[in-house]
Amino acid sequence: MKKTFVIFGATGDLTKRKLLPAFYNLQAENRLPETFEIIAVGRRDFDSELYREKAAEHVKNHSRNKPRPEIWNKLREKIRYLKMNFTKETEYPQLFEALRGTELAIFYFAVAPEHFETITVNLKNKLPKDFGVRVVIEKPFGHDLPSAASLNKLLSDSFGEENIYRIDHYLGKEMTQNIHFIRFANTIFEPLWNKDFIEQVQIISSETIGVEDRGNYYERAGALSDMFQSHLLQLLSLIAMEKPENLDTETVRDKKVEILSALRPLTPEEAENYLVFGQYSGDGNIPAYREERNVSETSETETFLALRLFLNSERWRGVPFYIMTGKRLPVKKTEIIIQFKKFPSPYDEDLHNLLVFKIQPEEGVYLRFNAKKMGVTDEIVPVKMDFCQNCHIGLNSPEAYERLLDDAIKGDSARFTRWDEIEHSWRFVQGLKEHKSKLHFYPPFTWGPEGAWEMIKRDGKHWFNSEDEDENL
Amino acid sequence: MKKTFVIFGATGDLTKRKLLPAFYNLQAENRLPETFEIIAVGRRDFDSELYREKAAEHVKNHSRNKPRPEIWNKLREKIRYLKMNFTKETEYPQLFEALRGTELAIFYFAVAPEHFETITVNLKNKLPKDFGVRVVIEKPFGHDLPSAASLNKLLSDSFGEENIYRIDHYLGKEMTQNIHFIRFANTIFEPLWNKDFIEQVQIISSETIGVEDRGNYYERAGALSDMFQSHLLQLLSLIAMEKPENLDTETVRDKKVEILSALRPLTPEEAENYLVFGQYSGDGNIPAYREERNVSETSETETFLALRLFLNSERWRGVPFYIMTGKRLPVKKTEIIIQFKKFPSPYDEDLHNLLVFKIQPEEGVYLRFNAKKMGVTDEIVPVKMDFCQNCHIGLNSPEAYERLLDDAIKGDSARFTRWDEIEHSWRFVQGLKEHKSKLHFYPPFTWGPEGAWEMIKRDGKHWFNSEDEDENL
Repeated sequence: MKKTFVIFGATGDLTKRKLLPAFYNLQAENRLPETFEIIAVGRRDFDSELYREKAAEHVKNHSRNKPRPEIWNKLREKIRYLKMNFTKETEYPQLFEALRGTELAIFYFAVAPEHFETITVNLKNKLPKDFGVRVVIEKPFGHDLPSAASLNKLLSDSFGEENIYRIDHYLGKEMTQNIHFIRFANTIFEPLWNKDFIEQVQIISSETIGVEDRGNYYERAGALSDMFQSHLLQLLSLIAMEKPENLDTETVRDKKVEILSALRPLTPEEAENYLVFGQYSGDGNIPAYREERNVSETSETETFLALRLFLNSERWRGVPFYIMTGKRLPVKKTEIIIQFKKFPSPYDEDLHNLLVFKIQPEEGVYLRFNAKKMGVTDEIVPVKMDFCQNCHIGLNSPEAYERLLDDAIKGDSARFTRWDEIEHSWRFVQGLKEHKSKLHFYPPFTWGPEGAWEMIKRDGKHWFNSEDEDENL
Repeated sequence: MKKTFVIFGATGDLTKRKLLPAFYNLQAENRLPETFEIIAVGRRDFDSELYREKAAEHVKNHSRNKPRPEIWNKLREKIRYLKMNFTKETEYPQLFEALRGTELAIFYFAVAPEHFETITVNLKNKLPKDFGVRVVIEKPFGHDLPSAASLNKLLSDSFGEENIYRIDHYLGKEMTQNIHFIRFANTIFEPLWNKDFIEQVQIISSETIGVEDRGNYYERAGALSDMFQSHLLQLLSLIAMEKPENLDTETVRDKKVEILSALRPLTPEEAENYLVFGQYSGDGNIPAYREERNVSETSETETFLALRLFLNSERWRGVPFYIMTGKRLPVKKTEIIIQFKKFPSPYDEDLHNLLVFKIQPEEGVYLRFNAKKMGVTDEIVPVKMDFCQNCHIGLNSPEAYERLLDDAIKGDSARFTRWDEIEHSWRFVQGLKEHKSKLHFYPPFTWGPEGAWEMIKRDGKHWFNSEDEDENL
């Protein structure tokens, strides 16, 4: 069966940095279908030859593997460039012409979100009936609940829900996928995975970069839409979901939706005390957010968010989930920290047990437990049992996009988000937005505004976000 | 308070290899009392100067730390040699004379077990009342229940139970001590530590060496007394004991005794199927056990033992403990393997979870669990979270004897065995001896006789004793 992958936005950043390198690596592992073509759609005045030359450069710059000519040549001849303006309905017939003979067309929307609807409408109007269609759509999926719902209606009327692949690239990350395996393919974790044994869960995702050249997009998104609504709530749903009876895509998604719909809206009082919005200021060398390109000088967009939330779930009754995310923080790291309760023990100085999922840049999981300090002494020290997936040389962890492109080509939608997941996420986020009142500023490369620290201190806890991992110990 | 340490057997192997180096390391860490003397008692015609010279050699050869002259000199001047024949009552007055002025005498019986009674009787008869006494006694403590009981009666009549320190040097090993910490100073292990979650426990202690020059002793001991009755039952009691309410020595020992008295005697049928005695044969280069020095040509002594046992305990109802020990096996390694049950999972190929305590020569603990195989695939692989205490350069794990000498000097008997522990061990071992019928031969550097493998295969299990740890995975 001939499959054709159509990239809208073929000269854009995502295509250069993620899609082309991912295709290269899939080619290297022989994971592309026998008869397969990539139609790179862009407005620029390239021809296929020129586009391929540029593509070779991008693969070279961004691929995790040093490209080998014999592999690149195989991929190269699958790529065709099509110059067209996707905002003009009149230019679509040439695309449909180029798709002649294909049996499945996969349209990848690697474009700014404002174009999602245009492309959908244009595609839908004249789409030939002689091939199947899948649509892969980048986040953000809408900018609030109504806009997401309207986009969704259009997409699903046009292509059918089963053909829509909503990307959340965190779902393609190795350790995100591994949460499911670790929880459900083992005996030892699940009995402890509840309010009786778990004291709190933290999800911390910090970046060192600022907004870079994405001011236009970020001004409307902020940390709430850019990170929280999508990536972090997905991580939360994977950590908190009930055990599915089987691994069918819809069964697993049902369990995730259960959690996303169990997010308890913050009361005004909670919002007052347990919801902190921040924005990075400058320090002379590093520009403040409000000084960044395409950002308003009076912008109220949050680049930092910290909150506490609870789930309406028997399993998690009373267990706080603390979430922190931000730009211009001291380290780049995404981790999920499960802190277990401490029960009376014959020892005085034992610390809480921790199970930590390292999502990125390190990928792995470790268990912090108490052991005897080595030597002629009975002191207790916290130690780590560590499994690091990508710490060893030679373990070259695949990029999320490799997995996701492979899935989309094969028609496996397990690692894409279903509409109702997005719906419930937006509903919860909507509530948070309504509580947004004050914005606190924080200097670059610090751990956000003080309020985020006071909030957790109020509960007698602290964030597990130290630069120095040993401080966690 | 002046303390004096008297070593009977000061020119023997144990003193050379273990005691002197341990004293050196205690000195290096400033752990010896301010006023402290070591009286090295031997029959050889040395003086203190000559003995110290030889002692310096032993420390150099056997200490884990390269000796530094300034430390050795501090220890050196604490050592005095006393030539005496400890089998002759008439020679004891000179020892008592040498002890004049001391406030506490610690007598260490580093001699062959046949001398334990002689020394005790000789000491007791004329022992001055002007200093306190502790007796540290090496294993084997008796060679069966009656002989152990009789030795114990003599010792405790002579010195009082509270002054008797019965050595089982496994109790001084770092990871043996750590079993207690890991089980009871953490939240996450204890809820899983029972028949509901644990499928089996294996304790495997293998040596590559043969009987070496210990034929005289070993002929009477065999693996049953040499390893099983002491070290392995101690490990078992630490793994299986209930949680003590506090860390008081007697409370902890009570809990150990609970387990040792819960050892369920093997029925004749069990003994037939789940108790295997072996003896190593030769292969041309390597002598058979029967060809070793001081070993009978028709010896029936076992150098290998494998058995399955159960505990009369609610916690462990139905959980088999498989024990294997032997000489001339393929590797030197002592490990305790906790295998967890497998529950229905949405995955097909998940393996049992394992928690493995590495007692020696590597010291650490690891958890084997199932994770996602890295890459664009949903395969499961077993992986390890590993905490290795002595794998890192610079971590120089103290010898068991350092801990035990320090304890004996301080008067901390927690890491020594109480009489009733020994009593119950011997009682169980006595039962096994009565079941000993056939002896099976095995070639050197193989994993014992076939029967040991058939036994466990009958239960649908296998030994976790592979040379290649990855095969365990």
